[in-house]
Amino acid sequence: MPSATQLDRLHVVLVSTRNPLNIGAAARAMSNFGVLRLRVVNPYAPAFREAKSAVGAADVLASAEQFKTVAEAVADCTLVVGTTAVGRRNLHHPLRRLEEGARLIRRRLVRSGVALLFGSEKVGLSNDDLSHCHWVMRVPTVEGNISMNLGQAVAVCLYEVIRDAKSPRISEKLAPASAAELERITTLLLDALDLSGFTSLRRVADSDERIRRLVRRLNLPARDAVIWLGMLRQMAWKLRNPDHDPKVGKH
Amino acid sequence: MPSATQLDRLHVVLVSTRNPLNIGAAARAMSNFGVLRLRVVNPYAPAFREAKSAVGAADVLASAEQFKTVAEAVADCTLVVGTTAVGRRNLHHPLRRLEEGARLIRRRLVRSGVALLFGSEKVGLSNDDLSHCHWVMRVPTVEGNISMNLGQAVAVCLYEVIRDAKSPRISEKLAPASAAELERITTLLLDALDLSGFTSLRRVADSDERIRRLVRRLNLPARDAVIWLGMLRQMAWKLRNPDHDPKVGKH
Repeated sequence: MPSATQLDRLHVVLVSTRNPLNIGAAARAMSNFGVLRLRVVNPYAPAFREAKSAVGAADVLASAEQFKTVAEAVADCTLVVGTTAVGRRNLHHPLRRLEEGARLIRRRLVRSGVALLFGSEKVGLSNDDLSHCHWVMRVPTVEGNISMNLGQAVAVCLYEVIRDAKSPRISEKLAPASAAELERITTLLLDALDLSGFTSLRRVADSDERIRRLVRRLNLPARDAVIWLGMLRQMAWKLRNPDHDPKVGKH
Repeated sequence: MPSATQLDRLHVVLVSTRNPLNIGAAARAMSNFGVLRLRVVNPYAPAFREAKSAVGAADVLASAEQFKTVAEAVADCTLVVGTTAVGRRNLHHPLRRLEEGARLIRRRLVRSGVALLFGSEKVGLSNDDLSHCHWVMRVPTVEGNISMNLGQAVAVCLYEVIRDAKSPRISEKLAPASAAELERITTLLLDALDLSGFTSLRRVADSDERIRRLVRRLNLPARDAVIWLGMLRQMAWKLRNPDHDPKVGKH
């Protein structure tokens, strides 16, 4: 079971939640399982205000942080996980059952921040939301059944995270890149692709999301992310300034 | 994980529930996890009527049975388990953590009926209710925290019952890129870095080897390797031919 310090690295991110009761319910489940970091992205404003004044889980709600975009809400985390109760969507992401996913989350919490994303009551996480995720975790509900209630989904996922008594091993793996670094790489890559003509040659509606997912699939360690950033920055700069001598270029 | 026949032997028994929303939420969680036998004991009558007309989990609610006493509600079961989220009460019963309790429930479901009791929102199960139980199961919430929401408690308990300890990886492993593909990526990347001025700015003796190792560390699946090849080829081409229109470029 993760320590309090480790659970402090776990951020529950509610994206576009509409119903204040659901924000309150999610906060209560968090409080029950000792997970205190709540982040809300683009909530329905009155819902968030109303939830903040709700009784119970006051500590979680009082310290909840509000963000405009998913990218900002997950920037300081090195693992971003989307959640889904139904397997109907044609996901472009690795899909892990909750049991396995929670194990990977626990392992990551030993060293760095994890964001666990829950979508809106009506439509769940959008493809754009999901493109920020490294993978997606599925609560093993009955096939073809109604979707899960948000508060219940949060409760079940957090229960599984705190469930296992076995202490996670510290792997000697390299420190992973943060979501902010991955997003910078994505932006530079999109820039370079644009400048090179790649984007206009292979125009597809969701090309940005495809590239974002592609970069997440690299599972870059922080050390390598720095190198990729440098390389892409240089290539983008040169594509933009073909006649400049790189040796004197300011970039 | 229990079969459908075995789950059909599991009865969720709500005792003296007051809030119709909670009865509906419990039914929804049951429906999510394939547990369809709901029994209510002495519910607040208008609450039960209201819950029955609620949307979602209609199957569970339509077939719900109503009883006057706990004794009648559990009569056909061979194992009766009470639930609690808080350990404050001086229990006269063996107290088992959810993980262990669910294992015993699964074992019993192979042969006979099990009743899982949840108390009212305000006071939980009374001592009289508990006296019908063989033992009590505790959801491992944080010490001294607020009690659990009824629907969330039902969701977490049923999840643990259907939980698959051996959770098979459903994430399909993608076929990895071949060494030849990785080498083509490396060559194109070196080419693009050269053309962009990156290499001359950061000259190190073993730069080629560093880049080669960097590319290997990506652990690219074959599917993604194709995309990276296309992107790098386009960038290298544009870096070499800054004045050409990419749409007509032969490359």
